[in-house]
Amino acid sequence: MKIKHTIQKWHELLEQQKLEILDEILAEDVEFHSPVLHTPQKGKILTKMYLSAAYYVFSQQTFTYVREILQDNQACLEFKTEIDGIVINGVDLIECDENGKITDFKVMVRPLKGLQKLQEKMFELLDQSKAP
Amino acid sequence: MKIKHTIQKWHELLEQQKLEILDEILAEDVEFHSPVLHTPQKGKILTKMYLSAAYYVFSQQTFTYVREILQDNQACLEFKTEIDGIVINGVDLIECDENGKITDFKVMVRPLKGLQKLQEKMFELLDQSKAP
Repeated sequence: MKIKHTIQKWHELLEQQKLEILDEILAEDVEFHSPVLHTPQKGKILTKMYLSAAYYVFSQQTFTYVREILQDNQACLEFKTEIDGIVINGVDLIECDENGKITDFKVMVRPLKGLQKLQEKMFELLDQSKAP
Repeated sequence: MKIKHTIQKWHELLEQQKLEILDEILAEDVEFHSPVLHTPQKGKILTKMYLSAAYYVFSQQTFTYVREILQDNQACLEFKTEIDGIVINGVDLIECDENGKITDFKVMVRPLKGLQKLQEKMFELLDQSKAP
């Protein structure tokens, strides 16, 4: 199963706080699909920016993966966390190519309040990063 | 793989418009987790009500499954549809017991506009069903 090694690397990145592993596991033409916005972010640079922002938001919290469904080159990783007392339950849908590089990374979040809270935190962070 | 037969039945239900198949494939103590609300709906009766409502909302539209990830007793089915011109992209996370009965059914939806549109349509329908 192609995705297995990729997901191991992903967990390594989170556990060892090594964001540089993204360079190794993302394909050049990877697409990132946010839980909030319709239009995907295309390419390694934008995907790294979004995943890093999500990493900083979630790493302040009690983020845990609670379910893992893997098949062929596809993975569905379910997570739970809490921000400011609001429960956030979501999935990372990850697809890799035949070299194990991630070509598609999609995030979905429930419930509505959790999605709104995540949006608030992501906007704060991405806005700060644009500040002079 | 336990879930495979259950998912076949689920597709049969949708294709043949046979909501009565729910009686066969849902466990008595199934829990339904809505994309909008935090608190799960417990038991076969409430889960049937929510899945039937979702069925009526989506059956008016161009609902299609676009990805299927199955492992052991777990499934992640990704779907796409459009309501009033708003794209709705979501997943059904389905878990079954050793008899293939569904014990957990969770739905997540993106983007935010899609989730809001789905909420609007589900509320309209569930509200109508309570009307005298």
